Amino acid sequence: MAGNKAVAYVGKGTVEVQDIDYPDFVLHDGPGVNKDNVGREVHHGVILKNVATNICGSDQHMVRGRTTAPEGLVLGHEITGEVVETGRDVEYVHVGDLVSVPFNIACGRCRNCKEGKTGICLNVNPDRPGSAYGYVDMGGWVGGQAEYVMVPYADWNVLKFPDRDRAMEKILDLAMLSDIFPTGFHGCVSAGVGVGSTVYVAGAGPVGLAAAASAQLLGAAVVIVGDLNAERLAQARSFGCETVDVSAGDPKEQIADILGVPEVDCGVDAVGFEARGHGRDAETEKPATVLNSLMDLTRAGGALGIPGLYVTGDPGAADEAAREGSLSIRIGLGWAKSHSFATGQCPVMRYHRQLMMAILHDRVQIAQAVNATPIPLAEAPRGYEEFDRGAARKYVLDPHGLLTRG
Amino acid sequence: MAGNKAVAYVGKGTVEVQDIDYPDFVLHDGPGVNKDNVGREVHHGVILKNVATNICGSDQHMVRGRTTAPEGLVLGHEITGEVVETGRDVEYVHVGDLVSVPFNIACGRCRNCKEGKTGICLNVNPDRPGSAYGYVDMGGWVGGQAEYVMVPYADWNVLKFPDRDRAMEKILDLAMLSDIFPTGFHGCVSAGVGVGSTVYVAGAGPVGLAAAASAQLLGAAVVIVGDLNAERLAQARSFGCETVDVSAGDPKEQIADILGVPEVDCGVDAVGFEARGHGRDAETEKPATVLNSLMDLTRAGGALGIPGLYVTGDPGAADEAAREGSLSIRIGLGWAKSHSFATGQCPVMRYHRQLMMAILHDRVQIAQAVNATPIPLAEAPRGYEEFDRGAARKYVLDPHGLLTRG
Amino acid sequence: MAGNKAVAYVGKGTVEVQDIDYPDFVLHDGPGVNKDNVGREVHHGVILKNVATNICGSDQHMVRGRTTAPEGLVLGHEITGEVVETGRDVEYVHVGDLVSVPFNIACGRCRNCKEGKTGICLNVNPDRPGSAYGYVDMGGWVGGQAEYVMVPYADWNVLKFPDRDRAMEKILDLAMLSDIFPTGFHGCVSAGVGVGSTVYVAGAGPVGLAAAASAQLLGAAVVIVGDLNAERLAQARSFGCETVDVSAGDPKEQIADILGVPEVDCGVDAVGFEARGHGRDAETEKPATVLNSLMDLTRAGGALGIPGLYVTGDPGAADEAAREGSLSIRIGLGWAKSHSFATGQCPVMRYHRQLMMAILHDRVQIAQAVNATPIPLAEAPRGYEEFDRGAARKYVLDPHGLLTRG
Amino acid sequence: MAGNKAVAYVGKGTVEVQDIDYPDFVLHDGPGVNKDNVGREVHHGVILKNVATNICGSDQHMVRGRTTAPEGLVLGHEITGEVVETGRDVEYVHVGDLVSVPFNIACGRCRNCKEGKTGICLNVNPDRPGSAYGYVDMGGWVGGQAEYVMVPYADWNVLKFPDRDRAMEKILDLAMLSDIFPTGFHGCVSAGVGVGSTVYVAGAGPVGLAAAASAQLLGAAVVIVGDLNAERLAQARSFGCETVDVSAGDPKEQIADILGVPEVDCGVDAVGFEARGHGRDAETEKPATVLNSLMDLTRAGGALGIPGLYVTGDPGAADEAAREGSLSIRIGLGWAKSHSFATGQCPVMRYHRQLMMAILHDRVQIAQAVNATPIPLAEAPRGYEEFDRGAARKYVLDPHGLLTRG
Repeated sequence: MAGNKAVAYVGKGTVEVQDIDYPDFVLHDGPGVNKDNVGREVHHGVILKNVATNICGSDQHMVRGRTTAPEGLVLGHEITGEVVETGRDVEYVHVGDLVSVPFNIACGRCRNCKEGKTGICLNVNPDRPGSAYGYVDMGGWVGGQAEYVMVPYADWNVLKFPDRDRAMEKILDLAMLSDIFPTGFHGCVSAGVGVGSTVYVAGAGPVGLAAAASAQLLGAAVVIVGDLNAERLAQARSFGCETVDVSAGDPKEQIADILGVPEVDCGVDAVGFEARGHGRDAETEKPATVLNSLMDLTRAGGALGIPGLYVTGDPGAADEAAREGSLSIRIGLGWAKSHSFATGQCPVMRYHRQLMMAILHDRVQIAQAVNATPIPLAEAPRGYEEFDRGAARKYVLDPHGLLTRG
Repeated sequence: MAGNKAVAYVGKGTVEVQDIDYPDFVLHDGPGVNKDNVGREVHHGVILKNVATNICGSDQHMVRGRTTAPEGLVLGHEITGEVVETGRDVEYVHVGDLVSVPFNIACGRCRNCKEGKTGICLNVNPDRPGSAYGYVDMGGWVGGQAEYVMVPYADWNVLKFPDRDRAMEKILDLAMLSDIFPTGFHGCVSAGVGVGSTVYVAGAGPVGLAAAASAQLLGAAVVIVGDLNAERLAQARSFGCETVDVSAGDPKEQIADILGVPEVDCGVDAVGFEARGHGRDAETEKPATVLNSLMDLTRAGGALGIPGLYVTGDPGAADEAAREGSLSIRIGLGWAKSHSFATGQCPVMRYHRQLMMAILHDRVQIAQAVNATPIPLAEAPRGYEEFDRGAARKYVLDPHGLLTRG
Repeated sequence: MAGNKAVAYVGKGTVEVQDIDYPDFVLHDGPGVNKDNVGREVHHGVILKNVATNICGSDQHMVRGRTTAPEGLVLGHEITGEVVETGRDVEYVHVGDLVSVPFNIACGRCRNCKEGKTGICLNVNPDRPGSAYGYVDMGGWVGGQAEYVMVPYADWNVLKFPDRDRAMEKILDLAMLSDIFPTGFHGCVSAGVGVGSTVYVAGAGPVGLAAAASAQLLGAAVVIVGDLNAERLAQARSFGCETVDVSAGDPKEQIADILGVPEVDCGVDAVGFEARGHGRDAETEKPATVLNSLMDLTRAGGALGIPGLYVTGDPGAADEAAREGSLSIRIGLGWAKSHSFATGQCPVMRYHRQLMMAILHDRVQIAQAVNATPIPLAEAPRGYEEFDRGAARKYVLDPHGLLTRG
Repeated sequence: MAGNKAVAYVGKGTVEVQDIDYPDFVLHDGPGVNKDNVGREVHHGVILKNVATNICGSDQHMVRGRTTAPEGLVLGHEITGEVVETGRDVEYVHVGDLVSVPFNIACGRCRNCKEGKTGICLNVNPDRPGSAYGYVDMGGWVGGQAEYVMVPYADWNVLKFPDRDRAMEKILDLAMLSDIFPTGFHGCVSAGVGVGSTVYVAGAGPVGLAAAASAQLLGAAVVIVGDLNAERLAQARSFGCETVDVSAGDPKEQIADILGVPEVDCGVDAVGFEARGHGRDAETEKPATVLNSLMDLTRAGGALGIPGLYVTGDPGAADEAAREGSLSIRIGLGWAKSHSFATGQCPVMRYHRQLMMAILHDRVQIAQAVNATPIPLAEAPRGYEEFDRGAARKYVLDPHGLLTRG
């Protein structure tokens, strides 16, 4: 039970692998830990030996310096692992269980958890509803890009894979259950995607690709993915999506070429606040571009699912309004089309069991869709860098060398 | 079948009662009639002798010059009347029926109508989905603030009152079924109002008051209405609402005084784009104030219903962005709270039958709540003027003198 | 912490008040305790000093000998009380809290609990999904018609009243949150009751009256209650319901007299398997009468909510099929009308918070509607007897003499 | 406009191809025509040249003499064709359009149609809500197993295929949109089938196979089909379903072998009232077998979708109760598991557009799944006979020889 290597943010643009404490059932003080959480006892927690722990686009916001994340923050909220120790109050999770951990930490006891809104749990983050491992302003729960991690409220939070051996055969797929697969799926569900829908997904990063695979799983007739990055668009085409190159201009015309009509039933924003313009404006950050474009190209009566992150404060924004999360949105257009808009963290628990079933029974190849790529934990800095440069890959850290055959 | 007196917009700030043609089953050319609609045959229509036809806040946007409404446009989309003639294709509506007409004109044959989205019918307005009587950019259907009006697709559109005599006893209540009662109700439903909810309704005009009455009917525990206008706030209190005077400052603190917590379950925007600031800013038009305030005071996981009108173009707006309907919205705040947003015209048909039942069986006193006030058609200019000055009244034009005992 | 008086079933037709052990945080062996539950540790539990604990119609099934309930079973699943001790793992419930306890015991950790289906929790009853205090075949959790009771998984299960003093002022109303108010409400919700509905509730016992009050709270236009018992029908009329005397014949005709049409939008079965015939058959038990009648009198496209209990085994049934819970149902009639049917225990947690809000803010007078009548615990036998004879009362046991001013 | 050949029921076990009148826009008297419908003018109708018109299992109920269908009744309610004439009131359907016709005739003007409940339209059948072409007690609309047929309320009812040539390439698939594909899909939707579900479909006839294909399209993890007929089970396996041979005993054990647990999330009854027993009882008709079995093998909290037909009267039933559609159902079991039950005709219009999109974009191979087999209209008697003997085929009549390349 000696050490615990982990990935920490150490300053704008840089992460490094550090030795941190092996977890126990107390939330200790440290970088980014809310004072009110220091000393919190976590007898309902379990300790996991991490089998797979992914780098997420929302980690990049911190590493790029677009948040107030403190130096030394241990990163990582996409966690899959084996239970190696259980707190005294844990009843239904056992040592040896292989489990997926929703990125949103939830108590399973508050009003929001009881309503299935685990993305905005009231009891885990003294700052505001909602929490996540290894994330700025989320209460200070230690991140999981590490060899070991502690998961609180384990009876509530974790999803046990029913058969360990079958699970290890699909571990790269199952590793996507902690965040991006449910997140993409939630984007589609909240955009009203169903059998026969036409769908436009803005963004071909891992969440966008997961949304596209989700739309297919939900029975969508046509799934169109838009991005600036040719490699990512090629990745989208590799599993049957249509694509739109937004650097070539407004997506609406390209959609008309594909569908015969310049609009889709459902729009999914898998980009968020670091959006860039379309066409000639593609070099510039234009944070409202995606939302405004989606209103333009989604049919009247359609819905917009917005899993892409919008923040309450962005120190790196181009103008003052954007610095406090205020964007110039063509709400009049959406109103004229009776659009509805669904925002926020995906409540992973709402979806992870059913998506696990779809994976285990070969109904979806999510690892392939997002191009999941295992790398050793020690190479995390390379993973962050390549991902930041736009590699069409989802990097999966492999702290114990268990993914080689994955 | 001689004449037909009607209320027309004749220039910024002015309406007048004019003689117009008695309706027939063709859509003729005239002010605001889309060229593609000229000459359209309407054998599925009926002609109504109007019993009650209300002045609406959205008429005021036109009269204030905040739209491109042409001079001569005959106004009025809140229509209740008696069938005096039926087109050759009408099958289930009969001469003598007393009916309510949804303000949204719908064909009952397109994809959107089949899905119950009658506010964005695809077949009645060549410009865009959705239409209404007597409204700018809505296809050119002649307005109903008149003695007589033609209602197309009558078998689909109209709601027949089951008993004429009982209906006349509650005619001022039933007159609210054509628009504001369903509109307020839709705002509440789309904000998630249910039994036990706490609700904040921004705006104590007729739609806001109708939303407040709707929230009560839906079983809300506490209904709070906010406005600048003391008379309208008093009206809200008259039927059991709590109130917030937004001229005195941020509604959040006043809400905390009422509820013990500074947030509500559900937020309803019954103001729209002509919003003003709060507190000291109350003199200035600040079109995003209501939306941003609702995100601030609605709990995480809550929803915003937005029946208040936002437009795609506003020639009278203070800045260029607002002139094209683009507002600076704190979307990051909404996202952090997992809010959802529902916009658009209320599809009246979805609700009018059930609300009629509630009226006829004395479950709601909607005319009292909105202070419905009948005046002769000839006095329409006075009604517009008083309403524009903020009278806490809903003016109901009485073209045939049938409302005196109402 | 001396003794604990409790109501026990001691043989067909008889209950008595006995001295039982003061509760602790272990499930001990005893009458009706499943062997697999014996010795179960309950560190997540709290001990309540019961303030109000009601007699339920489903207790009567046991006392009438219509189940296999063992002698000595401590009864009672409608529990409201003050926390006097908390188990070591309880985090958010505190000594002194005044709480309502859902009758269905739920773990808050299984798939069904996570989906909000707390009536069929997978972890509390070794025999089958779903459990309740003091009930046959429900795992053996000790009943709450007692001075003190232990409530497991307290962080998940209990609903804390926000203000103790305000709560005591409405304690008889709040005491209905543990079962019959949510149960009646669930019957209405699953029957599709909404604003403007016409509703028929079969049965004017406490659940039927609670369903009727719920329908009003949900905005129903007309609520009709049917029963054989004149006193109970009078009780229904006392708060604005229409009534039908099913001893006088088929309810359909009486409904036509009330509504003008012989059918309602929504049907609620608040009777269950001990139903009797209509008209001349009213003396005989005819267990399918209510279901078949509801299919007959509910409009095509309507729904049936079935909170009334149907059992898998009934030793007292008239024929062999009924003894195993098989009834002759006119499913062909339901099918022709596209009816849907919702059955099962109400998942109380889905509704109790919102209904508490409606009570605290005076939106419903549920104690009055069901004629809640406090009696001392010592008089429980009288309460059972009078209730069995059809008294139009809901008996609320008062183990500590706290309800006198209620 | 010469003749019109059509398939008529001429006595128990026998159909024949007859010459009937070419349709016009009046409903004339004839076998099975309700007197109140005689002479009804249908200016809202269109006349179709039928391209594909299928034999349905529910036609078999009539041909087997299990209904009161009169001799001479022209059969057929699964209609796909080309518009050759339009009534004077038709506005959006044009000569030359290739369309699918929902089997349920609906007016598009009544309360039920407005609520999307087109299976129980109030205006087309004087006997009861709901209608269909060529069916007993359904108002008397002439059946469509013919060269030509008249379709009323065409603007409302028909679904136009967007591109005629592309449609003809998939015409056998599109021919399933008039009934069995939506019907199977509705069974799944109302059973709660979604991504990751485990599903049991009782019955491997065309509706069962369509339900199985629908479950896959909806993302189900495992789809299990049960039947007695080995050929039909092989057909189910041909597109990836698991199968259960109910002649070998209770399906529950076989399900446990497949899934590891003896229960599924969702149960679909694609058999209806002509069900037979399981295992040794497989020879005998046991009309409640499927419903009771589904309650047994569906998990607590699950739902049952019941597209299989149950009738209000069955002259061929084995006992008196069944002759009036009353079956002995283990409702106590369903209640204990909190099951819900959804019955009735599928409202085809709710689904046909989205399923058409799934077909046109290659998301489902429904013709292959049900083994659609075109035969000339003249050979209809052979089709009925082979289908009645249990052929694993869906017979598609080809009145004009247009399906040869299909």
